[in-house]
Amino acid sequence: MAAFQTLNRDELLKIKDELEKEYEKIKGLGIKLDMSRGKPGKDQLDLSMGMVDALASDHSFVGEQGIDCRNYGVLDGIVEAKRLLSEMIECPIDNIIIYGNSSLNVMYDTVARSMTHGVMGSTPWCKLDKVKFLCPVPGYDRHFAITEFFGIEMINIPMNEDGPDMNMVEKLVSEDDSIKGIWCIPKYGNPTGITYSDAVVKRFARLKPAAKDFRIYWDNAYTIHHLYDEEDKQDHLIEILAECEKAGNPDMVFKFCSTSKVTFPGSGIAAISASKANLEFIKKQLTVQTIGHDKLNQLRHYRFFGNFDGMKEHMKKHAALLRPKFAAVLTTLDRELKDADIASWTNPVGGYFISLNVHNGCAKDVVQMCKDAGLVLTNAGATYPYGKDPYDSNIRIAPSFPTPEELKDAAHVLCVCVKLATVNKMLTGEK
Amino acid sequence: MAAFQTLNRDELLKIKDELEKEYEKIKGLGIKLDMSRGKPGKDQLDLSMGMVDALASDHSFVGEQGIDCRNYGVLDGIVEAKRLLSEMIECPIDNIIIYGNSSLNVMYDTVARSMTHGVMGSTPWCKLDKVKFLCPVPGYDRHFAITEFFGIEMINIPMNEDGPDMNMVEKLVSEDDSIKGIWCIPKYGNPTGITYSDAVVKRFARLKPAAKDFRIYWDNAYTIHHLYDEEDKQDHLIEILAECEKAGNPDMVFKFCSTSKVTFPGSGIAAISASKANLEFIKKQLTVQTIGHDKLNQLRHYRFFGNFDGMKEHMKKHAALLRPKFAAVLTTLDRELKDADIASWTNPVGGYFISLNVHNGCAKDVVQMCKDAGLVLTNAGATYPYGKDPYDSNIRIAPSFPTPEELKDAAHVLCVCVKLATVNKMLTGEK
Repeated sequence: MAAFQTLNRDELLKIKDELEKEYEKIKGLGIKLDMSRGKPGKDQLDLSMGMVDALASDHSFVGEQGIDCRNYGVLDGIVEAKRLLSEMIECPIDNIIIYGNSSLNVMYDTVARSMTHGVMGSTPWCKLDKVKFLCPVPGYDRHFAITEFFGIEMINIPMNEDGPDMNMVEKLVSEDDSIKGIWCIPKYGNPTGITYSDAVVKRFARLKPAAKDFRIYWDNAYTIHHLYDEEDKQDHLIEILAECEKAGNPDMVFKFCSTSKVTFPGSGIAAISASKANLEFIKKQLTVQTIGHDKLNQLRHYRFFGNFDGMKEHMKKHAALLRPKFAAVLTTLDRELKDADIASWTNPVGGYFISLNVHNGCAKDVVQMCKDAGLVLTNAGATYPYGKDPYDSNIRIAPSFPTPEELKDAAHVLCVCVKLATVNKMLTGEK
Repeated sequence: MAAFQTLNRDELLKIKDELEKEYEKIKGLGIKLDMSRGKPGKDQLDLSMGMVDALASDHSFVGEQGIDCRNYGVLDGIVEAKRLLSEMIECPIDNIIIYGNSSLNVMYDTVARSMTHGVMGSTPWCKLDKVKFLCPVPGYDRHFAITEFFGIEMINIPMNEDGPDMNMVEKLVSEDDSIKGIWCIPKYGNPTGITYSDAVVKRFARLKPAAKDFRIYWDNAYTIHHLYDEEDKQDHLIEILAECEKAGNPDMVFKFCSTSKVTFPGSGIAAISASKANLEFIKKQLTVQTIGHDKLNQLRHYRFFGNFDGMKEHMKKHAALLRPKFAAVLTTLDRELKDADIASWTNPVGGYFISLNVHNGCAKDVVQMCKDAGLVLTNAGATYPYGKDPYDSNIRIAPSFPTPEELKDAAHVLCVCVKLATVNKMLTGEK
């Protein structure tokens, strides 16, 4: 197939005719597939079944600090869990608080606290006329939902291949003291799969924000979620907490992580990592908010993994299951879309997503057509604040949940829809 | 021993001398006991060991709705957990949302949401000049900590034997639209052990608050926490959600509960129950806040209990362990303090606490003297907003954690300190 842009109207009409037939055929197959969310597959969940046995009634529930993990107590997490997650998120053990089952909830809570109590003594944001967040795009819809829920104005920041446009970030942050944060997924980002370069992280650490309560919201969701075991095929991210300290900005970052995509989504453990000054401020709230998080689940995680090496070995098993899934989609995209030259996509070495950019103005049509054919994708626009992709171009592909076989079918459906929507757009554009 | 009030100065001095000797003897024993918090004893925790085995790797993790509880999904709880907790809290299954491990956290969250987003469309409380809560006293320090954290002004409401002073509640609530809530522990209250009478609950349901966003914060923490199995020795509380609906106030109450003192504190499941209109409003937040709570722990609870009857049977085992603990304290109080006529205390048939009222101005001294002798009690004042007991009289006794043997010692220490502090006060008062 030739590049669509080189074709004349008749050639396009012919292709449209073929694609429509293929699309009708697909619709008749009664496909029912979901690539909308970064949901681990059943095979991945099976990897962690040992965790449910890691605590049994004939085991001790007393942790190494002598604490009976079945009872009340321990606000910021048992030392076993702190050690495990601080290694995972690459911070000193004193710079972490272990939370409940959801890092999203920790991020929500962090913004909610800032609204009512400010950040380390700053004016509560609810008392300010305007609060803004920078949002590298495309990004994670659930981040944007949090800031939207609190009426925080979101400003799009374009993503380059090595991270957000730092010229824009530096300029905005230094000029506008109503900018209080930036959402980042610095490694194997959602949806781009991009990892921030050393230069980008160093520029982050050296920001000179006008607002003292500006924080980098560093959602390290995919920190150990490599697709390949070989180190030269893995991305490396500089640790920002230490980098901020070096740069004289020790308090400027909140790091978040969880085991949601390590053990069981919804039954993992989450954490925040930050400077001690930040954590002290957070604990003033935490002690009012709860008596403590689920220590049995913390102990269960520790007993299952033993140590961080155990966790890394476990992640290799995830990678082995995810690689063929990513491959199934990427191979199909290559085969069916490359020559037509109507779309571009990322080829990540970690994380949970492939980011697909189609012809401007076509993303919504593609997603709708896929849906009509039985394939559910993330809503078009979801990767942008307010659900508004200004180019109507970006589609997030989440290949983790279906089987590789299903993914081949799904990717074919997607490719047919991309081509058909593009041809339609090109033909309409010519009118 | 005669009533202290009938004694003259010389007689009091003699008693003081004896008590001081006894107190010095006690201090020499090196006692180390904690009656400060409502913490279940180790024997109680052992009752739930079957729960950790209720999910094992050879079990199915698919719930009756066909949901794999290991994966993401289900915002408001699996149906098994909803059924269990809705029976526990006596509400229809459609009037409940299952949360994470802590009802305190749900209450915090409920107030926090009202601060930033109001209640069912009302003005966010952070935009108001003044927000007030009514606080029946003595009450639960962690309730008061939440409202204090958000700068909400707290007004003491005296507790009668059948519940809060409803004349005062009705008057204040109907006159002042800055009063947005009242903290209630309606059954086996903390610390009084009192259960609200039918008449009190009916008056609650029929309140005519000036503020549309006024809610009753009904913390039903001890709803099935009887000390006796015989029904005629149990308190009965009218269900307030239905009562509010009957009275034309369907949206006026938030009910909270958890299994913290049913299974494992910190590893239980919690819930809010309210009208559908309230729950719809809450879900708009919840969907931003989290992808879902720990469904495996929800399933674990369901599988362990089977149904609500299983839970009630389980509570009888708790009661059997708690009864001798309460008895150990109450017997000692009776024997050592009754004749002196210097204190009064509650004799609850459920819950976790005994409320002790000593001579005005003596509570702080008693708690300090106990502490110096190795017995930790809840801080004096803790049962009042801002930690300020205007009479310096109330002491909360939490007899659940130590063994009955230890409790006998602890109660003796307490009685000696009460008597000594009282004699000291009486002698000083005479000067």
